Formats: sequence, C-alpha cells, structure tokens
Amino acid sequence: MMIIMRDGATDAQVEEVIEKLHQVGAEAHLSRGEFKTIIGAIGDRERIMEVPLGALPGVESVIPIMRPFKLVSREFKPEDTIVKVGDAMLGSDEFVVIAGPCAVENEEQMMSSAKAAKAKGASVLRGGAFKPRTSPYSFQGMGEEGLVLLQAAGEACGLPTVTECVDARHVEMIAEHADMIQIGARNMQNFLLLREAGMQHKPVLLKRGLSSTIEELLMAAEYIVRGGNKNVVLCERGIRTFETATRNTLDLSAVPLVKHLSHLPIIVDPSHATGKKELIGDLSNGAMAVGADGVMIEIHPDPKAALCDGPQALDFEEFASLMEGLKRIAPAMRRRIEE
Amino acid sequence: MMIIMRDGATDAQVEEVIEKLHQVGAEAHLSRGEFKTIIGAIGDRERIMEVPLGALPGVESVIPIMRPFKLVSREFKPEDTIVKVGDAMLGSDEFVVIAGPCAVENEEQMMSSAKAAKAKGASVLRGGAFKPRTSPYSFQGMGEEGLVLLQAAGEACGLPTVTECVDARHVEMIAEHADMIQIGARNMQNFLLLREAGMQHKPVLLKRGLSSTIEELLMAAEYIVRGGNKNVVLCERGIRTFETATRNTLDLSAVPLVKHLSHLPIIVDPSHATGKKELIGDLSNGAMAVGADGVMIEIHPDPKAALCDGPQALDFEEFASLMEGLKRIAPAMRRRIEE
Amino acid sequence: MMIIMRDGATDAQVEEVIEKLHQVGAEAHLSRGEFKTIIGAIGDRERIMEVPLGALPGVESVIPIMRPFKLVSREFKPEDTIVKVGDAMLGSDEFVVIAGPCAVENEEQMMSSAKAAKAKGASVLRGGAFKPRTSPYSFQGMGEEGLVLLQAAGEACGLPTVTECVDARHVEMIAEHADMIQIGARNMQNFLLLREAGMQHKPVLLKRGLSSTIEELLMAAEYIVRGGNKNVVLCERGIRTFETATRNTLDLSAVPLVKHLSHLPIIVDPSHATGKKELIGDLSNGAMAVGADGVMIEIHPDPKAALCDGPQALDFEEFASLMEGLKRIAPAMRRRIEE
Amino acid sequence: MMIIMRDGATDAQVEEVIEKLHQVGAEAHLSRGEFKTIIGAIGDRERIMEVPLGALPGVESVIPIMRPFKLVSREFKPEDTIVKVGDAMLGSDEFVVIAGPCAVENEEQMMSSAKAAKAKGASVLRGGAFKPRTSPYSFQGMGEEGLVLLQAAGEACGLPTVTECVDARHVEMIAEHADMIQIGARNMQNFLLLREAGMQHKPVLLKRGLSSTIEELLMAAEYIVRGGNKNVVLCERGIRTFETATRNTLDLSAVPLVKHLSHLPIIVDPSHATGKKELIGDLSNGAMAVGADGVMIEIHPDPKAALCDGPQALDFEEFASLMEGLKRIAPAMRRRIEE
Repeated sequence: MMIIMRDGATDAQVEEVIEKLHQVGAEAHLSRGEFKTIIGAIGDRERIMEVPLGALPGVESVIPIMRPFKLVSREFKPEDTIVKVGDAMLGSDEFVVIAGPCAVENEEQMMSSAKAAKAKGASVLRGGAFKPRTSPYSFQGMGEEGLVLLQAAGEACGLPTVTECVDARHVEMIAEHADMIQIGARNMQNFLLLREAGMQHKPVLLKRGLSSTIEELLMAAEYIVRGGNKNVVLCERGIRTFETATRNTLDLSAVPLVKHLSHLPIIVDPSHATGKKELIGDLSNGAMAVGADGVMIEIHPDPKAALCDGPQALDFEEFASLMEGLKRIAPAMRRRIEE
Repeated sequence: MMIIMRDGATDAQVEEVIEKLHQVGAEAHLSRGEFKTIIGAIGDRERIMEVPLGALPGVESVIPIMRPFKLVSREFKPEDTIVKVGDAMLGSDEFVVIAGPCAVENEEQMMSSAKAAKAKGASVLRGGAFKPRTSPYSFQGMGEEGLVLLQAAGEACGLPTVTECVDARHVEMIAEHADMIQIGARNMQNFLLLREAGMQHKPVLLKRGLSSTIEELLMAAEYIVRGGNKNVVLCERGIRTFETATRNTLDLSAVPLVKHLSHLPIIVDPSHATGKKELIGDLSNGAMAVGADGVMIEIHPDPKAALCDGPQALDFEEFASLMEGLKRIAPAMRRRIEE
Repeated sequence: MMIIMRDGATDAQVEEVIEKLHQVGAEAHLSRGEFKTIIGAIGDRERIMEVPLGALPGVESVIPIMRPFKLVSREFKPEDTIVKVGDAMLGSDEFVVIAGPCAVENEEQMMSSAKAAKAKGASVLRGGAFKPRTSPYSFQGMGEEGLVLLQAAGEACGLPTVTECVDARHVEMIAEHADMIQIGARNMQNFLLLREAGMQHKPVLLKRGLSSTIEELLMAAEYIVRGGNKNVVLCERGIRTFETATRNTLDLSAVPLVKHLSHLPIIVDPSHATGKKELIGDLSNGAMAVGADGVMIEIHPDPKAALCDGPQALDFEEFASLMEGLKRIAPAMRRRIEE
Repeated sequence: MMIIMRDGATDAQVEEVIEKLHQVGAEAHLSRGEFKTIIGAIGDRERIMEVPLGALPGVESVIPIMRPFKLVSREFKPEDTIVKVGDAMLGSDEFVVIAGPCAVENEEQMMSSAKAAKAKGASVLRGGAFKPRTSPYSFQGMGEEGLVLLQAAGEACGLPTVTECVDARHVEMIAEHADMIQIGARNMQNFLLLREAGMQHKPVLLKRGLSSTIEELLMAAEYIVRGGNKNVVLCERGIRTFETATRNTLDLSAVPLVKHLSHLPIIVDPSHATGKKELIGDLSNGAMAVGADGVMIEIHPDPKAALCDGPQALDFEEFASLMEGLKRIAPAMRRRIEE
C-alpha cells in the first residue's frame, strides 16, 4: 500500500497514519517530497486492508501495490494448474471443447446433443437445468429433472458434464449429478455460492461477471480456492460495454492476461458473448490463438425451436464446421483436440 | 414484436415466421417494402417471447415493441405507489432519508448512529449484518447478532430499519428483525432471492446492479411484484463506466426516467455511487432536485475506524450539514422532510 | 511518480531506473519491502513524464502521484475563475442559462428563438452553424451564413452568443461573429483546435468528450489555458455507457468533483446528454442542485420541424416551465438568475 | 423506419406522421394492434432521416430498419475490396503486417526500425510525425521533418509508408510523403478530416474511435468513400470500457462482424489496445485467427528510450518472435505473409 498525503497534510496527520499501520504490525516507509508526502506500508496484506486508511484526515489516496489475491496468483504457484473433468484436462496441452444445449429441454434433445458433441470432438457436455432469466415470464429450466437427463446423456456418450448452480442450497445436489459445477456470470460475486463451491470437491467453472474486472474474477476464484477447492477453471464470456452490435464485448485480452497473473486454466464462451451464431466459429479460433485452454459452445438439434437463446445455438452441422476450424489451427498452437 | 427479414428472405421463410406466430395465438401483420419485409407480431407477450424468432432462417433481427415488464409499469398502474416503512412514506411528498452505518460493528456504534440519524431528521435506520465483499480477506459482517443490534437501536430511537439480505435462506430471519429488506446491487439478478422476497410481506429496497440497465432493474422488480409483494422501492446507486474518478457513475437521469416508466418509488444512494464523502452532500441535493423520493446515506461515529467503507461514511456533523442542505431545497421541490 | 518493481527485479534494474531519473534532474527515494521494491520519483513533472519508465526492465508499473494538469488546478489558483460572456458571469453566483436552437436554420427561426430565450431569462444565445453529424447524409449546418444570422439575433435581443467551431481554420471567423467559442464533445481532444482556441481571446466553452474522463477534460482545458487563454468554461454533457434508455449518461458527479479539482466554471447540457425532452427540466434542476454554474438548453419554435435533434428540443412553453423550476430552486442554492 | 406510437395516440397524431412521410415521398404502412399502433416508413432513406419523427406528438420511438450506411455495405458491393499500399494488398489472402515506431524521433531510429521491419516480414512501415497527446507537456512529434525521415527510411528499405494526419490542412502534405494516410482514433469523427481524406487518392487507414460503435466506424468510412476515395482500410484498436487491466478492451468480435457488414478490409492494432507488450504477440495471433487482414505493431530499437508509448513497443527480437507466431498460424488460416 502506498498512502499519498494531501498537499499541506500536517505532521500529526502523517503520524496518525503511521501509528495505524504500526497497530496492525506493518512497517511504514516515509518519503517526503517538495510537494507530496508518501507513506509506503509493508506488512500483512490482509491486516493492512482492514484499516480504513482512506478515511484518515490528510490522506489523499491509497494505492494498492500488491495484488489483492494470493492463492490463485502465478507468484504463489508458478506452474499451471491442470483441472481434470472426466478425462478432459483443462490447463494442459489439450484444447477442451465443452458443448451442449443452453437448457435441458427433454430426453431426446439432450441425448441427440450429447451424441453430436461426442461425435465431433467435444470432451465435456453442458446443459442448464436452472436458468437465471432476466424476465420472470421466460422459461426457467427443468430443475432436478433436467440434471437427471443431463447425467444420463453424459453417461450414455461417455462425456463428463457441467451444469450451472444458482442456489447455494443446490450445490450438493448438483455435485451428485454433474462432474463440474458452473457458477454463472450473474453469480460471480454471489459470495455465498462461492463459499459453498469452495467446500466441496467437484471442479468449478467460474464465469466472469459482465461488469467484473479481471482482478475481481480472480478475487472470486480466491474465495473458492481459499475454501479448499483448488479445481477452478475461469471463463471469459464477454463484458458489458456501449457496443450494441454484439450482446457483450468478448475480451480476449483477458486470456493472456490471466495466464500472466494466475496459474488457473481459462476458457472462452463465444456463444453468450456475442449472441450471434455467425461470429462463434471465428471467435473460437481467436480463443485458441490467444492461448485459451478451451471453449464452451451452445449447440441444439433444432435451434429455431430452442426454449432458450436459440439465436446463438449452432446446429450440429455448424458445430462440425467449427470443430474443423479448431483442428486446423491446433497444431500451430501446439494444442491437442480429443478425437 | 417486429420481425425484420433479411434482404432476399424467401416466401417460405416469411411463411414459417407467420406460422410460428399463429401457433402461439398471435396475429402477424406483414409489410413488404422494396428492400425489407417486416412482420409485426401482436398477441400475448409472454407466449410470443417464448418463440425463438431470431433463430428462424431468413430473420435478420427481432425488435421488441412492448415493454417487457407489466405489473411495475406506469401504464398498468398510473398512480404512484406509496410504500410505508414504519411511519416513513416512500413515494409520497415526504423525502425519506435513510441513514446508518455501512456495517453493524457493535452496540455502541449502532446506538450512537441511530441517535444521530434520528436527531438530524432521518426516518429510516440502515445497518448491514451480512456484507458481500470483493475480497475473502475483508470483514464479512456480524450476521444475526448484527440484526439484533440493528433492531434494538431502531426500537430505542423510534426508527424503522432496513438491512441487506444476501441469501434466500435468510429472508424470513431478516424479515423478523427488520422493517425493510434490502436486495443489494450484486444480487439484483439473483432471481432466487427476488422470488423469496416476492413471497413475504415486508417492503423491499431493490438496488440497481452496477451494470444493469433501467429496464433490467424494472424486470427485477417485476419478479418481486409478480410474486405477490407490491411494496418495492428502487434505488439508483451508480453504474460501472470507464470513469475512475468516482467509484461508480451516479445515473441521476434514472430517477425521472423511472418515474415516467413505473409507479414505484425510487431513492438514491450517493455514498456507494461516489465512494467520496466530499461529493455526497451535493449529490443528495441533486437527487432531491431530479425528483427522487429519498436518499440513503452512510454515517459512522468515527469513519476512520469503520470496518467497512470508511472513506465514504459521514461523521454526524457532516450528516447534519447534509440534512440542512436538503431542508433548504425541500420547499422548492414541494417535499417534506421529517423533523 | 511511484515506480513499482517486479518481484525479483535485480539491483542493476533498480539502479537503471534511478539513473534515468537522475538524468532528468529528479530525486529517487528507494523503499525496499519484503516483497516489493518501490521507487518514488520527485522532481519536474514534465521532465519525468518524458521518461518511458514503464518500458525499463524490471518495472512492474508506474503510478502517477501528482495530477497531470497544473494551470487549471485548484491548487494552482484557489479562487474561482469567473468568465464573462457579454453580461453573463459564469463562475459567479449567477446561474447562467444558455439557450437556442441546435442548428441555425433561417432568420425567422433564429430570431424567434432569441426572443423567447431572452424573454424567459436566458442570458446567452446558442445556435450551431457547423454541425458535426454521424451521417454524411444529415444536415451539416448553414456555415458562415448561419453565423451571421446568430449574431444578428443576439444583437437584436441583447444576448451574447456561443457557437461551435469544428475547424482550426475557422477560429478567427467564429471569434468575429460570436462572443464565445464552443469546442464540442467530439473535438475535446482535437489538440489543434485546442491550441488555436488558446491563442485567441474569446472565452471558450469546452464540452467533455463522450468517452473522456474528468482528468482528460481538465488536460484539454490545460492546453487552452497554457496557450494564453484563461477564459475556459467546462461543460458536462453525458458520457457513453452501456445504458441505452438515455442517449448518454449524464455524470452530475462531475460537477462537484471538478469544483474540487479546478477553479474553472462548469455548466451542464442536459439536452444532448439525455436526448429526451421529458427529462431535461428535472436534470436542469439537478444541475443547479449539485453546484453547476449554468445549463445549456436546446429550444426551437417548432421542434417537430427541426432540421437537427428535434426530439430533444423544447418549445418555448416547455422552456418557460423549465425556467420557472430553476427560479424556484435558485434561492435555496444561493444562485441568481437573470430576469 | 418503424414508428411506434404511444398508447393512446390519437388518430390525428397518426395522420400527422403519415403526412410527414408522404411529404418526403415515402410510403407509410399502418399496423394497428390491440395496444400499439406501428407505422412502417418505406422510401428514400436519406430523405426520411431528415424528418424529426421522434419529435412528433404521439410518437413513442423511432426504430431504424435499414442500415444507415450504404456505399461501404456488403449489400452494396458483395465482393471484398482490396486496397493496395505499395505492394501490400489489404483485403486479399495476404496478411499485412504494418510495423514501425510510434513516433519518428531521428534518422537512425527510423532507419533501423525500417530495416528490422523489412527483415522480419512487415510489408508497410509506420511512424508518427504529428502526435495527438493527452498532455500539452508531452512530446508532440517532429512534424514535416518527421515525414521526410519516414519517407527516406521507407524508400531505403522498399517499404510503403503510413502516417497519421491530424489536421485537414495537412492532408496534401502527408499524401506527398506517405503511401497511406492514417486517421487516428481521436479523429474518427473529425468529419472535416474525413471529407478531406475523401477528396484525395491515397489509401486511408481509419482507426475506430475508443468510444465508437462499429456502426459509427462504418459511417465514418462512408464519409470518405462518398467523397470519392474507395481505398479505406478499417482498424480495430480497442474501446474504452470499465476494465483497467489493459489500456483499452480490444474488441476482436468487430473483425468478423465488419466482414459481414462491409466489403472493406480491417486490421487490428494490439499495441495501442492493450498498452502492454507481453500481450501483443498473443493478440496478433488472435487477430489473424478471427479473420483480420493484418496487424499494426509498434517496434523501437530501444523501447526504454522511446519518446512516446515505450511500454507497448516491441524491440526487434520480440518483433521477430511475434512474426514467427503469425507465420506458424498463417497456413491454417489460408493466409500468406510476405517474406
């Protein structure tokens, strides 16, 4: 922490800051310039963060120097974390494609989607049973019945599964049916859910909130890892900006940036980011090229009959063509795609 | 709904759209122009919204015409809703000031804050017992013990209370201790919590998410009202933008806009919006001048010792000065402030 | 400047930073913590800013401590600057209303607007002769002919005038016809225009760019003041955010914030910010209540026939009602409105 | 255009809209639903856009159906435009790398940069002579002297050149010295400059403004093409968002989206977008993978001595490594890189 004092801050005010730092066992380094006095605080990050330094008289601003996350940082653990979901190894040289429908709708839709996913080279199956929807008038998902259908389809095709959890009370139930628990963008800062996810042992797919910074995403992951669960995979899925031509703005810079800051794997969801099926193939290629560990793609046997997000779902032929593109680039990126 | 067909859409594609609309009992009005064919869909909003029109072949875009919310709309109920919290009447000619600490810390802090709030003219007492914090290393609130202290302070000073609920499992517990249940910005689209809040009878203070549009705020309110609870007060608390000089960008235009679109009361939280105590007084004046029904202000007996958000907390003297400003403007705005 | 070194930066890298600072005559204060080494640079701001410190090996980040603007800062000149435009005194206790049409269209439109502006209490007349338009197919303004009509209308009604300059080659021509030169939002960082504006003596109305921070706005003003022209008035007119319900998001927090940071006057333009006439009155009240020195309002004798931005133009009756609102609040804010 | 009438709009108000449309030669299609009346306007886009429909009484909103740009649209010209700059063919199967320093500083720096660019496989040389800088205290470029040095370096190494023009008065001078004229992000809506650029015959590199939508970028290109100059290359260089970890947020979705909407070539500038040299290689790969026609990269013989944007400049070795990455992916994307 650097504490910048206001012009004209008194000696007593400077002293008060130093004393507060000493109270939490931190050292204070004082630099007095012609115009500005600056105090560097060095000590236990967590204890220093508890002091409301910005509220002390004479303080102009407080600038964090150390990153606010620790367990998920690359400094803490330099080597890449590999998260296993079934046979898929996220964070390895495998490029993992997760595919499936936005929402589980019925047995046939789920089963045909699973078969197509498997046949084209996906290695994890997705399907939502609890859907957070902006409108109370939209389809809200099949609930536990949907979990059962997802599990059956996964088992039939030999694919591990991932599904979203929206309620801390459901974590255990979901962990029973699925191989990976997704925490969606709207719940990235649902700290309750993060804590529950940290206390069980299934891997967690944590999606970036639409208005969350990369630092906040890593802080959310820190909640889970600190709770005891080290198997966290991050997911970039677009942020909210002024641009309306795409549903959100996919921030592919987040991928190499996260790789510098953290040892956790990161994948990309171009389906939700753009909301436009004609962009999904190109952006999947882009995701691989910037270094992502995988992508998550929405597919549906008949997108125009989908109960949820039809316009962004690929049919099986479109998905096959996306996979071909990925397989063409993979060798240049030294990535392997499951066949 | 208006469905815009692509240039060169075939007759069969146009027919398919029309048939889909007829299947859900809607009428389809066809306009064929030189370049564009447009289909107007008229019928039951909820049923039309279930059709994935955007995924049909030949469809370029789908433009909603009717607002997606209904029960909270001004068209549905032209007269202002008045929400009573204790003696405070939100949505009436009373300008309601909610004040109190960010977090309940201990009995003395809570009691002295309540006394100051009451003495200066606040009519509702706030205090957080469950704190959603970006960092797992920050103070997370006192939990139920905090609720008890808040309730005691409110009763001692004759002020109704409001406190945040972050967990659907806590709604009843909070309703027992507090007079109004706050749903915070991070939980504005926690639909589970919205549904629980809709099923009980205490008034709800619903804060706008930091990346939520006004339409989404009203949709979230629709969840609660549709659940049976009509006592919803909205709260503008700043949105996330590129500007970093303030913590968030307070969107005061939201106030008159909500007044046009909805019958629900709306208040403003300048403390969280700016994160800077020196701006709070001016923006409270601004909130009243644009037509808000109240403000929510963080106060603390000793901001520099606050466990949470100290830099934005006003001490009691600063709060008194803020109240004087509001009282000076109130008559010009035909507003009444409790004495 | 604070220079934060990476973990594991070598002594040689630290030395190189220090040497670079010495080369531009700056002092370097070294703080070595357990994890981080920090170097505080103190000296001539302009010379230090020329050193590409962030590109030196071992440097993690460079954090500016001192504000990058100087002449426009409150520290440099603590007392408020008052800018005179005709008899209007921006920055004094007068609340200055600037009114007029978006674009000059013809003599009658301009003259009737000027009369209405004067009659209702405006003290400066606006009217655009050169219109920057997103589409090449939209009306681009009358050019110099428009300037002549604006000047004539202003003289006939005894109102000073302001009009936008979009071309550095026009600065002199505009200064001949108008009493104040407006630099529009799109040109806030047209440094050429800023420099030309700094070299002449008419007051300048500098509008905030739609994606400019407050700091960048003040830097743009610094260009003008440094060029020799101290008569700069800032204008908040909305920033671009994800919210689409209003054209832009009016950032009223900018007003008190600028008042803390700078001695320059600041006004608000609610017409362009919202693009919605039904919000303009309320936001003008808000502008006064947060401490603005004035507002700029678009009026038109017949908004539905306006060649430019009709939906946000007030007719004369609506403008009269807006002025009544302002006059009602003015005494509470200790502001005077010209009668 | 679709005109949505308010609930309760009168017949007279509907009639007035229809009459206004007839006045500009447009047809009006009326759809009356139970709640809403909608008028579809079909006719000459440019004339309809001049009618301030949104200001007519009873009108709730006006929704554009047709795109506001025409000459640059894919509908107008389905085949890709190829823009030649020297031997480089932007928009063909060649992936064009533009490289060079941010600013021309002196002969040696420019010459060594040109040699390195050529040696590693760049096919266009960049270098800024007029630098728009946020601060008046920063280096503003060498002016015409810089143009001469850039031209000399380009000629010596057999590379065509591109340089930024910030002043409409300079267009001819720049066209004399350089092979391509860059219009920077801050000037994307400097319509004066766009018009001048449209009236000469050198190709134009048009960078997206940091707060400009893709539609606005295409409108800006429309200004140039309509002026008579068809050789326009677009450039995505990051937009301003709430994320501060990168300087801007590179919007790679813009690339495939522009390819759908327009026939113009589009390249990517990852140097300015991120401001971080460690991300530039990965994002260049990403640019190629999403379908861009090239990248623009800042290089410098000694980044830590650069007068402008040193932290984002690659040294020659880093640039060589970036080129190797591109060459590895190129065949998979069916792209050719000049050797």
